[in-house]
Amino acid sequence: MADSNQETHYTENVQNHLKQVEALLDNCILAEEMAAMREPPHEGRHTPPGTSLNKQHFADLRHKLDSLHPADIAYILEALPIEQRLLVWDMVKSERDGEILIEVSDAVRDSLIATMSRDELREAAEQLDTDELADLAPDLPQNVMRDVFKSLSIEEREQLRAAMSYSEDSVGALMDFNMIPVREDVTLEAVSRYLRRFDELPDHTDQVFVTDREDRFKGVLPINLIVVNEPEMVVGDLMLPDTIQLHPEEKAEQAAQAFERYDLVSAPVVDEDGKLVGRVTVNVVLDFVRTQSESDMLSQVGLREEEDIFASVWKSAQNRWAWLALNLCTAFFASRVIGGFEGTIEKYVALATLMPIVTGIAGNSANQTTTIVIRSLALGQITQGNARRLMHKELAIGGFNGLLWGGIAGLFAYFLYRSVALGIVMTGAMLLNLLVGATVGMTIPLVMQKLGRDPAIGSSVMITAITDSGGFFIFLGLATIFLV
Amino acid sequence: MADSNQETHYTENVQNHLKQVEALLDNCILAEEMAAMREPPHEGRHTPPGTSLNKQHFADLRHKLDSLHPADIAYILEALPIEQRLLVWDMVKSERDGEILIEVSDAVRDSLIATMSRDELREAAEQLDTDELADLAPDLPQNVMRDVFKSLSIEEREQLRAAMSYSEDSVGALMDFNMIPVREDVTLEAVSRYLRRFDELPDHTDQVFVTDREDRFKGVLPINLIVVNEPEMVVGDLMLPDTIQLHPEEKAEQAAQAFERYDLVSAPVVDEDGKLVGRVTVNVVLDFVRTQSESDMLSQVGLREEEDIFASVWKSAQNRWAWLALNLCTAFFASRVIGGFEGTIEKYVALATLMPIVTGIAGNSANQTTTIVIRSLALGQITQGNARRLMHKELAIGGFNGLLWGGIAGLFAYFLYRSVALGIVMTGAMLLNLLVGATVGMTIPLVMQKLGRDPAIGSSVMITAITDSGGFFIFLGLATIFLV
Repeated sequence: MADSNQETHYTENVQNHLKQVEALLDNCILAEEMAAMREPPHEGRHTPPGTSLNKQHFADLRHKLDSLHPADIAYILEALPIEQRLLVWDMVKSERDGEILIEVSDAVRDSLIATMSRDELREAAEQLDTDELADLAPDLPQNVMRDVFKSLSIEEREQLRAAMSYSEDSVGALMDFNMIPVREDVTLEAVSRYLRRFDELPDHTDQVFVTDREDRFKGVLPINLIVVNEPEMVVGDLMLPDTIQLHPEEKAEQAAQAFERYDLVSAPVVDEDGKLVGRVTVNVVLDFVRTQSESDMLSQVGLREEEDIFASVWKSAQNRWAWLALNLCTAFFASRVIGGFEGTIEKYVALATLMPIVTGIAGNSANQTTTIVIRSLALGQITQGNARRLMHKELAIGGFNGLLWGGIAGLFAYFLYRSVALGIVMTGAMLLNLLVGATVGMTIPLVMQKLGRDPAIGSSVMITAITDSGGFFIFLGLATIFLV
Repeated sequence: MADSNQETHYTENVQNHLKQVEALLDNCILAEEMAAMREPPHEGRHTPPGTSLNKQHFADLRHKLDSLHPADIAYILEALPIEQRLLVWDMVKSERDGEILIEVSDAVRDSLIATMSRDELREAAEQLDTDELADLAPDLPQNVMRDVFKSLSIEEREQLRAAMSYSEDSVGALMDFNMIPVREDVTLEAVSRYLRRFDELPDHTDQVFVTDREDRFKGVLPINLIVVNEPEMVVGDLMLPDTIQLHPEEKAEQAAQAFERYDLVSAPVVDEDGKLVGRVTVNVVLDFVRTQSESDMLSQVGLREEEDIFASVWKSAQNRWAWLALNLCTAFFASRVIGGFEGTIEKYVALATLMPIVTGIAGNSANQTTTIVIRSLALGQITQGNARRLMHKELAIGGFNGLLWGGIAGLFAYFLYRSVALGIVMTGAMLLNLLVGATVGMTIPLVMQKLGRDPAIGSSVMITAITDSGGFFIFLGLATIFLV
């Protein structure tokens, strides 16, 4: 029972695996360091020195790694600092290199590939299916890809070329070629006999695809129907012709929504001539949705890519630059807006203490609006018909919140500085700036969408820039008119 | 070909469906308004008035709705303003109410349930599986749930009680009860015969579960193995005993990671006694991952829940209050920090123009750090061993960026105000505030995690509060010391 419990908590399990690997690594490194005191240091990839004690430690580690799922090894590689990561990578059986390279994050993949020779990379690449190879190809040196390409069959070359020709966010980039085609006029028994020739069906084979002699897609036959129906029945009578078909050029996000909406496990990919060219499976869709949501999170704070948490300071700092530079520019601009009112601030220094309130709340409120708009855009819920209606609604919310929170802030200003005029200027500025925030929070994502850009990237910088500069201008401008 | 193309682009398709429904609705509403000019207005749920022209319009709409997938109807309901939404809801066949209520978002579900009578709700609920019913139950009136509960079998009551007893973010909340158990000692042929008694296997049945007479879980038998092996083989020889098992109390996020890592379609849920109690399927996991990522997005800007985009201004404004109130408090606090340096600002009004630069960049930088830490925490990549190492790294990045961008900001200040001291104060303040940002950006999510709270919720308010107030204090404090 204790044993089965251990298997159950697989997440704790992978963390246990990580701990065990860390402990084994410590042994190896310690032993290596002791050996190094006797031998001269060696260069390049680590190789276990020849003492028997070391050999045992390295054998233990290697044995542990052999027992792990490639995805778990990928997890461990990502969680280890670079020198230990490379030591583990070196211990992994080379015939598993390919499947592990596919699993690790881009940043960590780069760090692994950098240590591998041309031959090692070629061998790793040759272990992969063509759709996996297409994922890995951009990270491989050109000469390696040339070697690999030569080793492929004509059909595989064609598949690889096809898979690499689609953009990263298209259905073509998600598809694999492990579909099993059958003919319409055969019996289930014949299909079963055909399937029995496979030792194992490809992963996620919940259905086989019915095609004609020209490879044209006719429908799908769920495996479950093969199981629950009598063997004499004919494929054509059982197949589902009106099923969802994907196109390789479609947006991957649309395929993901179809998988979510219709609870699919696999779906056929059909080209313009109606020919079956591949299939998409739910595991790939699940990875896509997760990766997408992570990259949305990262891009919201201007991180271009997932960071290897053990990357160098220099590399990580660079990943954060563009965003900070952009924000510095907008901050400089806002600063000059304030600079235009230095005379007013000199007379009423209270304005300097209150102005961040005006900009802060409007920025927060505008970002709420934008988040809702971006989400509704992604779901396709904003139509031309209801866009104006939503604009009115957001303005109403902004106006309402402006009066409420602006009123409170106005009272705050009044009680601090005992000036009714200052309180009114404060309330008026917050109301106006929240209306500005609602307007830009709504229009900027809509305009970006119209220009064909991803509204999730960069909207918030622009919006905050406007509510900052705009807020300073409105507040200090009103103060100049009514207080000076 | 044109036809198959239309089927292919299912997302454009659901938007086409939406447009068609909108057009049909316009006809109905127009006809209804014309009829209303003759008849007195009627109350409650809409019923088509009795003219033959109207009947035709309503029949068209009803026919269109009957042809749609429940998920597509849910999509259309979410995209329609409230009065049109209720008209469509009224047109939907009542035997489909249950499956559609399960599909719509919480906010929209509330708006639909509010219009339904006790009997209608009971009928809708009785159409559902117990696991679906458990999802819907919190939204149903108590008396309805009592009626429904009475209509269930003893086994179903037990399942419903179990499903409702688990917290929303546990595996128990994701599981269903449609698992097919088989015994170890039977042949594949017997299994096939047993399966053939089903008209259709439950969705996502990629494997059947092998149990003993006490319902103890022994292993899984993939359907694919039934298909590719000879009928005489025995289940016990083919089944996979060392397979992933989930526990009902585990975190749903951990199950999601297992599905991603090991590319699962379904997984058994086993209780503490080793008994098979249910299963989790990949479609539920996919929905969970999507919902989770959306609620992360929303909670980052303080939206407690997904908004019905057609909810009233009053309701939407409330959804945004807590966040704005919280931010107003932190802004008041920051304002008082500035207030402490009014004397300094009176002498050097330039400080007022420059201070938002110091706080803005540090806030951005700290939020980058937090985003990376939260992500690494979610992946379980931060261990006690490497936390300090990461802290050092983030401090190094903060220091580096502080010198770089602080230096540029210092030059900006110098060229504007021709004061070397001001430039140095500016650079120093930015450096220090970026270090503060790195420290809190790293420690706040770690502490929240330790306290058992979700680090994704609320971290950014606290961090921005500290980089704001801290930034004003550091900058104006340094200025008071070195400039006055």
